[in-house]
Amino acid sequence: MRILLANANTTEAVTEICAASARAAAAPGTEIVAVTPRFGPAVISSRAENAIAAHGLLETLAEHHAGCDAAILAVSYDTALAAARQLLPIPVIGMTEAACLAACLLGGRFGLVTFSSPDLYREVIAGHGLAARLSGIAVVAASPYDAASDPDGVAAKVTEAARGLAADGADAVLLGGAALAGMGGRIQKDVPVPLVDGIAAAVKFAEGLVALGLPKPQAGGFAAPRNRPSLGLGDALTAMLKRP
Amino acid sequence: MRILLANANTTEAVTEICAASARAAAAPGTEIVAVTPRFGPAVISSRAENAIAAHGLLETLAEHHAGCDAAILAVSYDTALAAARQLLPIPVIGMTEAACLAACLLGGRFGLVTFSSPDLYREVIAGHGLAARLSGIAVVAASPYDAASDPDGVAAKVTEAARGLAADGADAVLLGGAALAGMGGRIQKDVPVPLVDGIAAAVKFAEGLVALGLPKPQAGGFAAPRNRPSLGLGDALTAMLKRP
Amino acid sequence: MRILLANANTTEAVTEICAASARAAAAPGTEIVAVTPRFGPAVISSRAENAIAAHGLLETLAEHHAGCDAAILAVSYDTALAAARQLLPIPVIGMTEAACLAACLLGGRFGLVTFSSPDLYREVIAGHGLAARLSGIAVVAASPYDAASDPDGVAAKVTEAARGLAADGADAVLLGGAALAGMGGRIQKDVPVPLVDGIAAAVKFAEGLVALGLPKPQAGGFAAPRNRPSLGLGDALTAMLKRP
Amino acid sequence: MRILLANANTTEAVTEICAASARAAAAPGTEIVAVTPRFGPAVISSRAENAIAAHGLLETLAEHHAGCDAAILAVSYDTALAAARQLLPIPVIGMTEAACLAACLLGGRFGLVTFSSPDLYREVIAGHGLAARLSGIAVVAASPYDAASDPDGVAAKVTEAARGLAADGADAVLLGGAALAGMGGRIQKDVPVPLVDGIAAAVKFAEGLVALGLPKPQAGGFAAPRNRPSLGLGDALTAMLKRP
Amino acid sequence: MRILLANANTTEAVTEICAASARAAAAPGTEIVAVTPRFGPAVISSRAENAIAAHGLLETLAEHHAGCDAAILAVSYDTALAAARQLLPIPVIGMTEAACLAACLLGGRFGLVTFSSPDLYREVIAGHGLAARLSGIAVVAASPYDAASDPDGVAAKVTEAARGLAADGADAVLLGGAALAGMGGRIQKDVPVPLVDGIAAAVKFAEGLVALGLPKPQAGGFAAPRNRPSLGLGDALTAMLKRP
Amino acid sequence: MRILLANANTTEAVTEICAASARAAAAPGTEIVAVTPRFGPAVISSRAENAIAAHGLLETLAEHHAGCDAAILAVSYDTALAAARQLLPIPVIGMTEAACLAACLLGGRFGLVTFSSPDLYREVIAGHGLAARLSGIAVVAASPYDAASDPDGVAAKVTEAARGLAADGADAVLLGGAALAGMGGRIQKDVPVPLVDGIAAAVKFAEGLVALGLPKPQAGGFAAPRNRPSLGLGDALTAMLKRP
Repeated sequence: MRILLANANTTEAVTEICAASARAAAAPGTEIVAVTPRFGPAVISSRAENAIAAHGLLETLAEHHAGCDAAILAVSYDTALAAARQLLPIPVIGMTEAACLAACLLGGRFGLVTFSSPDLYREVIAGHGLAARLSGIAVVAASPYDAASDPDGVAAKVTEAARGLAADGADAVLLGGAALAGMGGRIQKDVPVPLVDGIAAAVKFAEGLVALGLPKPQAGGFAAPRNRPSLGLGDALTAMLKRP
Repeated sequence: MRILLANANTTEAVTEICAASARAAAAPGTEIVAVTPRFGPAVISSRAENAIAAHGLLETLAEHHAGCDAAILAVSYDTALAAARQLLPIPVIGMTEAACLAACLLGGRFGLVTFSSPDLYREVIAGHGLAARLSGIAVVAASPYDAASDPDGVAAKVTEAARGLAADGADAVLLGGAALAGMGGRIQKDVPVPLVDGIAAAVKFAEGLVALGLPKPQAGGFAAPRNRPSLGLGDALTAMLKRP
Repeated sequence: MRILLANANTTEAVTEICAASARAAAAPGTEIVAVTPRFGPAVISSRAENAIAAHGLLETLAEHHAGCDAAILAVSYDTALAAARQLLPIPVIGMTEAACLAACLLGGRFGLVTFSSPDLYREVIAGHGLAARLSGIAVVAASPYDAASDPDGVAAKVTEAARGLAADGADAVLLGGAALAGMGGRIQKDVPVPLVDGIAAAVKFAEGLVALGLPKPQAGGFAAPRNRPSLGLGDALTAMLKRP
Repeated sequence: MRILLANANTTEAVTEICAASARAAAAPGTEIVAVTPRFGPAVISSRAENAIAAHGLLETLAEHHAGCDAAILAVSYDTALAAARQLLPIPVIGMTEAACLAACLLGGRFGLVTFSSPDLYREVIAGHGLAARLSGIAVVAASPYDAASDPDGVAAKVTEAARGLAADGADAVLLGGAALAGMGGRIQKDVPVPLVDGIAAAVKFAEGLVALGLPKPQAGGFAAPRNRPSLGLGDALTAMLKRP
Repeated sequence: MRILLANANTTEAVTEICAASARAAAAPGTEIVAVTPRFGPAVISSRAENAIAAHGLLETLAEHHAGCDAAILAVSYDTALAAARQLLPIPVIGMTEAACLAACLLGGRFGLVTFSSPDLYREVIAGHGLAARLSGIAVVAASPYDAASDPDGVAAKVTEAARGLAADGADAVLLGGAALAGMGGRIQKDVPVPLVDGIAAAVKFAEGLVALGLPKPQAGGFAAPRNRPSLGLGDALTAMLKRP
Repeated sequence: MRILLANANTTEAVTEICAASARAAAAPGTEIVAVTPRFGPAVISSRAENAIAAHGLLETLAEHHAGCDAAILAVSYDTALAAARQLLPIPVIGMTEAACLAACLLGGRFGLVTFSSPDLYREVIAGHGLAARLSGIAVVAASPYDAASDPDGVAAKVTEAARGLAADGADAVLLGGAALAGMGGRIQKDVPVPLVDGIAAAVKFAEGLVALGLPKPQAGGFAAPRNRPSLGLGDALTAMLKRP
């Protein structure tokens, strides 16, 4: 099985971090094909960048999905998730979406730890219809740079935040963003509820969906676009919209 | 990997139908251990039976989970799901819960076809916090007996109901209840959106959760009960509640 | 009028505390018949015990409701309330349900003070459709044992919690759990909003419903089960399910 | 016990219909004191009239509540309910509020049959936080005049509407408006779920609240207004606002 | 264009403050006609006064709307807004409604600073269906008298409250109540998100609606009342209800 | 005042239709500057095209907003609205957003008539937090081509749909999509509730917001992005993201 892992940021180092997480979670026989958009924001950190990034991500998916059995969006805001799901003939899963659904399978409510953009995460989760299962969001005062330069200090802050969320009713805690990749394994022993990694969850759900073999919708809002003209888009994306 | 598949009805024939679906969906190397409660309603069809069945199901889970890596509740009302999830040291997944979450990964909203009890299904789905993603419930005027005696007639009715739900905005359709097991494969070609089988979805999610290897919560409402005295329950369940 | 007061815990001392509250609230001519399940958890404190307790409670109701005009569930999680309401031919009222509805009649929003399990209370209240009227839940750091050994200290803590809820917008405060029985009378003078006792409220609502003389539903999800086979249940419950 | 039954319409005939229902439901020893506002709409049928009527109703309550133990608002839109509850030192109950809460005690969801103004009823019920328990509203094509001139024809229409609501998931049906007073007793035998009369329910809840003896809030939004100057209001109402 | 600005309090000084804000915001050629009710509470501060004030406000609107193109309700609880909208043949806008909608055009969520009655504001905003866009309400410990006697001290407190709301996710902050009129201009430079004045916003929305020239509804709950008899109301209001 | 009207479709004819509507609604002295993206879908009709179009729209806004006082997104799915609002230093308004808010000022609930994509409209409206004010969506079986070739036939269908929505509780009806531009004026006389044109409403709201002169947020999720590197975007957009 081949799973396309598409970043929506144009920073290849972030793609590689996510790809490593994905490969660690993949079953034997599952190949992870990691791709980075040709254009767009270096690192999405706000609504504007998130909207801009959608295009580059969809171009990338159009160019690289052939031969893959499923796609994972390796971006914590689930950028363009519904669009990608409609566009591609294969299952598409968002990493925060996957983390949320895994958390739903583990308990009643879940919390989220992030370095920034709590309002964006809240909107993403509400957009999945899961606002009632979100117990809270804890913002850790640190940056991705801190995570690299002072991993112990950041780990301590994330641990404290996750413990606080658990004390306030979270039955699981999501770690938001590529900067927290690998953090779960490091601090899980000090947190009394499971820490969910979105990339790993997405890989398992993708493998599961592929195995279920369900058909692509042929009607409704998730049926693929047909016969849609466009202007100035990449060849692969233009062709996907124009399919008869 | 061993997955315990526990019915909440005391009718073994229903257990066997679900077990067959589970085995068809299981990965090579996944063993399905199917069990039926020692006491309780023959077939749950209402709130009263559903509440009664919880006890027998939990006794069964207590007696049979040792040596298993995950458990699936093979009952379409997700009977005692949160209780079982709290009680057992292994992941527990409900079949309708799994169908809902799989449908969430496939599109925006989902519908459900059932022979009866639409209000119970609505409550179950609302209890999962997913009311906003339910587009509608279609009740087919048929019984499990009809499904056995007139499979073509019932298949036609279910097809019509599923097509109607798709026309009204469902991006996927759940088939509710063991009586509809196997129906998906039969009629999928005539329905323009994917038909989701809860048992199959639960098997894939269970395999995925086991692979993720997340720890059991040690705090909060899903931590296992400890040192809880009880009266007149089965030995295995009594012991689980009484663990220090 | 005879009102059946059924505990869902198997601890008779708890039944007696609730029965005393009920008798204090009952009108002249209302007899309280207090019963305790034959089996189940000693004191429900979690989802698992709550689900297990449903069966014993329903057996008890089946065995003892004859000759009674209404039933009250003397358990603060409203265990098996909908099931009991469907099963019995008489009105059935939960103690927390009653407290919530009484609070609705007194003001806009209500708070709740409890020793434990705020998530269970939140789910119970949300299940009643009243989440929007819950202003908050305050957990008092005390145990039922503290309530017995240091009543003044616990009363002070509960008073402080109730006053805090009032300051944050609660127009009434519910006292959750049998361990807080009688606390309302003791501390009401120090709390600026009414303290609602669920057992007392349930008694008055039960008396009122009996007087209204409304018929049992003959259709829908609360009509009594009919012709339902079962296995290994008590005689009375088996017979109720099997009624033609 | 004396219960003040205050109409918000200025049509005494409507007051009398409601008073008769109340007296039929009242316990021995409960006296119903029925009053009609001195000014305001003859019969409230819209938002504008409902807002205007609030003043006259509150004047009436201020003038007549002395010596009463509780008050019932005999107007199906629960006109000025929160205001009256804040203003008066005694419990105040709305007739549709009471019908909703009684229906909550009887099953999961309830429907409502009315001659007009479904949007007003929907807002009233949503204002009580109970939108999730409303299964639907059926508008019967008839007028209060038809109810008087062709009672059999109207009874048939209401029966059909109530049966339709039950078929669509209502576990109880509310009859909205004084024009439907007494209809419940007439058609209950032909409807498979209980028909709830708001006035009768309000009487029983009022009797129950009085018996509970809970104190008036001394803080928050339902504490009585104090030291509030006003201009040109009736003497009794002016005095109540001006209390020190 | 003439805009009727109607206070619901009977304190003319409050009317004048609001009228000054309105005139400052009005376009050249827009005339503000400010009116104060003949009777009612001096200053609305609770549910009871708010319900009483509705009548006087509607009398005032009935008496003064002729010759005006739109009306603004200069009262922060949007008193009788839906009623006035139904009654009058011209557009009617509430000042808090306008502030909320302006804030919606500026960002995702908004906060509100007030001296009192947070529960009333929460209900008003929820009544507009905008609860999900309210990030929080901050109550400043000050009175209208403080605002007049110690404007610097109050400005400092309001600034701190508004900054706190912004830090907690408000993209705009509403200043609730006439006592805060003019505060926005004074402290905006110290608050990082826009401060919205309801009167100013209402003026611009009123001018816009008038320019759009949309017709009054002729059907449904906002069509004007017709042929409605009443008792003891003012001549103008009586006549408006009685229109054929 | 100059208002930038930016289409998100790359079809200039659609831009011109919207610009004409905008100019008809604009105040004297308001100039409409209409622009069309350099690349993207010809006409957005689905989630995929909507996500792709965001980028081209934001490039266009970056290139053309200088010298403008506000921007209107002339696309009925409010494409990239929050992103544009964050990115630009001037107010940004979506045409469906504007239609919804105008409808909120006119009555309680609103309906929407569209040729297609009811699920997208529902998501857009829910994203604005206004789901509770949407009474329903009516899909007219017609295409933009029909609207051009058989205007009378389409007008009749839209009239019927709008009347149906009014009968079901809509106090105003939104006409969705550029293909329905101008339809409101044509059929308003046959529909009993106001028909709201999003472009016209957006123009009036934009003029109003400009007049209010509120500052751009300097903090939170709608503060402009700063110092954000990107790859391969247009010069103007790259520069806006990179501002210090």
